[in-house]
Amino acid sequence: MRDLFLIGIGTGNPDHVTREAQNALRQAVAVLVPRKGPDKSDLAELRLQILADAKATAKIIPFEYPVRDPDLPYQERVEAWHDDIATRWSAALEDAPDGPVALLVWGDPALYDSTIRIAERLADLSIRVIPGITSIQALAAAHSLPLSTVGGGFSVTTGRVLRASGWPDGVETLVVMLDGDCAFQDLAGDGYDIWWGAFLGMEEQLLIAGPLEQVATQIVAERAEARAEHGWIMDTYILRRR
Amino acid sequence: MRDLFLIGIGTGNPDHVTREAQNALRQAVAVLVPRKGPDKSDLAELRLQILADAKATAKIIPFEYPVRDPDLPYQERVEAWHDDIATRWSAALEDAPDGPVALLVWGDPALYDSTIRIAERLADLSIRVIPGITSIQALAAAHSLPLSTVGGGFSVTTGRVLRASGWPDGVETLVVMLDGDCAFQDLAGDGYDIWWGAFLGMEEQLLIAGPLEQVATQIVAERAEARAEHGWIMDTYILRRR
Repeated sequence: MRDLFLIGIGTGNPDHVTREAQNALRQAVAVLVPRKGPDKSDLAELRLQILADAKATAKIIPFEYPVRDPDLPYQERVEAWHDDIATRWSAALEDAPDGPVALLVWGDPALYDSTIRIAERLADLSIRVIPGITSIQALAAAHSLPLSTVGGGFSVTTGRVLRASGWPDGVETLVVMLDGDCAFQDLAGDGYDIWWGAFLGMEEQLLIAGPLEQVATQIVAERAEARAEHGWIMDTYILRRR
Repeated sequence: MRDLFLIGIGTGNPDHVTREAQNALRQAVAVLVPRKGPDKSDLAELRLQILADAKATAKIIPFEYPVRDPDLPYQERVEAWHDDIATRWSAALEDAPDGPVALLVWGDPALYDSTIRIAERLADLSIRVIPGITSIQALAAAHSLPLSTVGGGFSVTTGRVLRASGWPDGVETLVVMLDGDCAFQDLAGDGYDIWWGAFLGMEEQLLIAGPLEQVATQIVAERAEARAEHGWIMDTYILRRR
């Protein structure tokens, strides 16, 4: 059995890295690193910086990300894509020396990331997950916002689900991830506050907060501008019913 | 304006600490540390270890936690308690040298913690929140469990709310925090899986997972035994509808 470390490394701020993650990076003999188009090359450099900061000596083994088949229905397309990635990992692992191999995961491997599900497709691996700071936490921290109200809870969903199903029943606080289309624009009325952030924890960090009806247009505009400037954007937001 | 750093330090594993937290601890001139009865003295020692690991030289200023007034209704009792803590912090801050003061928060200050709400009661402070690994993340990592399903979301609630309101509509995955009474026992039927953990990230860590109807009794028994042994317990669990 080979150890596979799935290491959460935070949201793009090298200081998000935990001691547990640094120790695991030092222990690894190899790191699988995806080659992902030129647009996100600043993220590729961040990975290398995190490895250098941890004084990791692991061999870096690149692998290509496959393209998702647009002709398949959503769940099937994701399944096929994960199978394909697992096959590429298997091939890459053949180039690794004996010992633990690491994968670096933005945020936390448990949250909107498929690394655990992909790793489970591979035989003869012992998986160890190391949690990392998520964009939800970086967002709440940047706004000094308590995510949970006293005695209350919160829900986490995707832009896709918010757009399809609207505001969920009985929910006061809603965290929305993976929303490329600003689904908050579909919420009618003036009953919501929003805390939005992009490039969280990074130097380029953008933050906007206020009553949704007052800041929605500003968020859409700043988001579009920042995306055009950087070639990509990662953003997330928290909505709370007033 | 004095800087007040609210620093998430993880769930009791000193390796959960991030570089950002370590840097902030080194920058602080003083740390406010609660005196909380002898039962949790292992946690008090952990705080000191985290400070030592960070090479922090901050002055340690202890303060007493007030007792909650049991005669007040829940929300009012919490408000009065927070007011009382804020007054004690004010008094403690008078003993601090000029410069940033830190408070260490188990988990993440945004999640089921009132440090941000208490700090906002104090004038002339500039609050900076530093996120930390939560027990939710430590639990999911320990079980190698993806918290979010593909395209799905999850909800976070308290034992109190689960007991009062039952399983929330439309929810597939539910994280339950602050449950001293094993509210999962009230869920009828055999439609749930549970991933439970106590002392997450610590040497004493306990983990149980399986179909709820098969492991519920075991969790209740092991929880009671561990609580009797340590004098306290912190646990949390994830439920998923099958």
